[in-house]
Amino acid sequence: MLKNYLKEKREIIDESVKNYLDDLKYPKVIADGMKYAVLNGGKRLRPILLLMTLKLLGEREEKGIPAAVAIEMIHSYSLVHDDLPALDDDDYRRGKLTTHKKYGEAQGILIGDALLTHAFNVLTSKDQEIDAQKIVDIVRLTSQYAGVNGMIGGQMVDIESEGKSIDLPVLQYIHTHKTGKMISLPVEVACIIAGIEGEKKEKLIEYSELIGLAFQIKDDILDIEGDFEKIGKPVGSDTELEKSTYPSIFGMEKTKEMLAEKIEAAKNIIRSEFESDKGRLFIELADYIQEREK
Amino acid sequence: MLKNYLKEKREIIDESVKNYLDDLKYPKVIADGMKYAVLNGGKRLRPILLLMTLKLLGEREEKGIPAAVAIEMIHSYSLVHDDLPALDDDDYRRGKLTTHKKYGEAQGILIGDALLTHAFNVLTSKDQEIDAQKIVDIVRLTSQYAGVNGMIGGQMVDIESEGKSIDLPVLQYIHTHKTGKMISLPVEVACIIAGIEGEKKEKLIEYSELIGLAFQIKDDILDIEGDFEKIGKPVGSDTELEKSTYPSIFGMEKTKEMLAEKIEAAKNIIRSEFESDKGRLFIELADYIQEREK
Repeated sequence: MLKNYLKEKREIIDESVKNYLDDLKYPKVIADGMKYAVLNGGKRLRPILLLMTLKLLGEREEKGIPAAVAIEMIHSYSLVHDDLPALDDDDYRRGKLTTHKKYGEAQGILIGDALLTHAFNVLTSKDQEIDAQKIVDIVRLTSQYAGVNGMIGGQMVDIESEGKSIDLPVLQYIHTHKTGKMISLPVEVACIIAGIEGEKKEKLIEYSELIGLAFQIKDDILDIEGDFEKIGKPVGSDTELEKSTYPSIFGMEKTKEMLAEKIEAAKNIIRSEFESDKGRLFIELADYIQEREK
Repeated sequence: MLKNYLKEKREIIDESVKNYLDDLKYPKVIADGMKYAVLNGGKRLRPILLLMTLKLLGEREEKGIPAAVAIEMIHSYSLVHDDLPALDDDDYRRGKLTTHKKYGEAQGILIGDALLTHAFNVLTSKDQEIDAQKIVDIVRLTSQYAGVNGMIGGQMVDIESEGKSIDLPVLQYIHTHKTGKMISLPVEVACIIAGIEGEKKEKLIEYSELIGLAFQIKDDILDIEGDFEKIGKPVGSDTELEKSTYPSIFGMEKTKEMLAEKIEAAKNIIRSEFESDKGRLFIELADYIQEREK
């Protein structure tokens, strides 16, 4: 069930991203580079999570398309900048040249800047089905979770921690901020769109935090046990950059136990809060995050 | 009159920028770097233009403070990224080390990203005196003028043109986009806040485009005739980067004539559209742009 759902929604997201980038023509290198960076065969986990949450809350998913596209653009810009020589210095992502390797370093910086900026244009695009106050709330939350107190903060501490031995609170800060905030964001945005407050919202955020953490732990595992053909980038880059990860702190066996615990806790939240047919996709998504090979 | 006005408003802007950055503490290098990059003794031309336009339109300037601060943050991030080794590779700005020279290159990239992102948080900050629809319109316009179809587009074509002989349309594209859009932006934002449409708005935009172009022409002149002590960066960097400029295309004498023409045209718009006491600051600002030594 989940597999077909993911495929169908991935196509909707890709089509929507294309629509929002199609008009951009000049300067050609920026317009092309923005499309190259976003339309890269990504999993679309974040935008799909937004659509899934809307569906769960009984809201039409069309209302969430601009935010879903914007969140994917912000995720993509962050990868473009992370791959730069001054940061992780990666040449490949998902089996293709990274954006700066393809277009040049100055171009990579500006393509990332342009994607981030354009995300806010998409969030505030005209003729949306949601009212202005909700759009303002979504922009505020997005800029908070993507910024210094969110994703960028996590990225900075991650870089500062390279080559150092760090303790669990710092590793947790990195994971909850670098990856976690942008996985909670689509769930919270869906709650804003659906007008949901209170316990139901809190539980959904808790679920998103657990699968966000699980997603990052799984990334750490794949960086050691993954297959280049599947993950599309060299295995062992964390070790090479001397990054602290769950496996480097806890060992592989304990890491896998922790992953399983997070997944189980996430599923229990859904089981206790929603009827089984309504929550099924969320249960299956948690399993998918644990079992994914890329 | 203008001198005191600029001084007074500069202090208000600096104070407001501080208020919006004060809460940011962690990661320290990003929080410190954001403050370093914005609180740098800049002229604050863009935010002051927003406050001046509100005043001209009979609107309270408090309503424009979040947008004024956000525009200055976006301007500052663009300078941080422009100064990076992969772009203009500048070590000094306004007599101080550039942000990446002070904090490191990865840090410079992320500090710029954080400022750009935070600008949208400031634009949508809570308890504003303007309604949500206007905030949405301001976010949309800001992301348009700062993005691929605005400032970033101009910056990209500027870089692509280094070492090449370019013609006037390309130089005009660079100037109207790299500098011009972000000088028109505060004027248009003030019109949105004041609810002004039609000819008055068109004339104000025309004025902003003329002084924006004049500002850039003057920058080109100062890069040749300026004083390091005053402009705070090495003279002759355009020549070194083989950038096409007004003086390199038209010669210095003709360039100064063109500057004077733009200034005169800008002043004429104000004279024909507003009573002399109301428009006086706009006339004086045009003169200031022509005569400034930094």
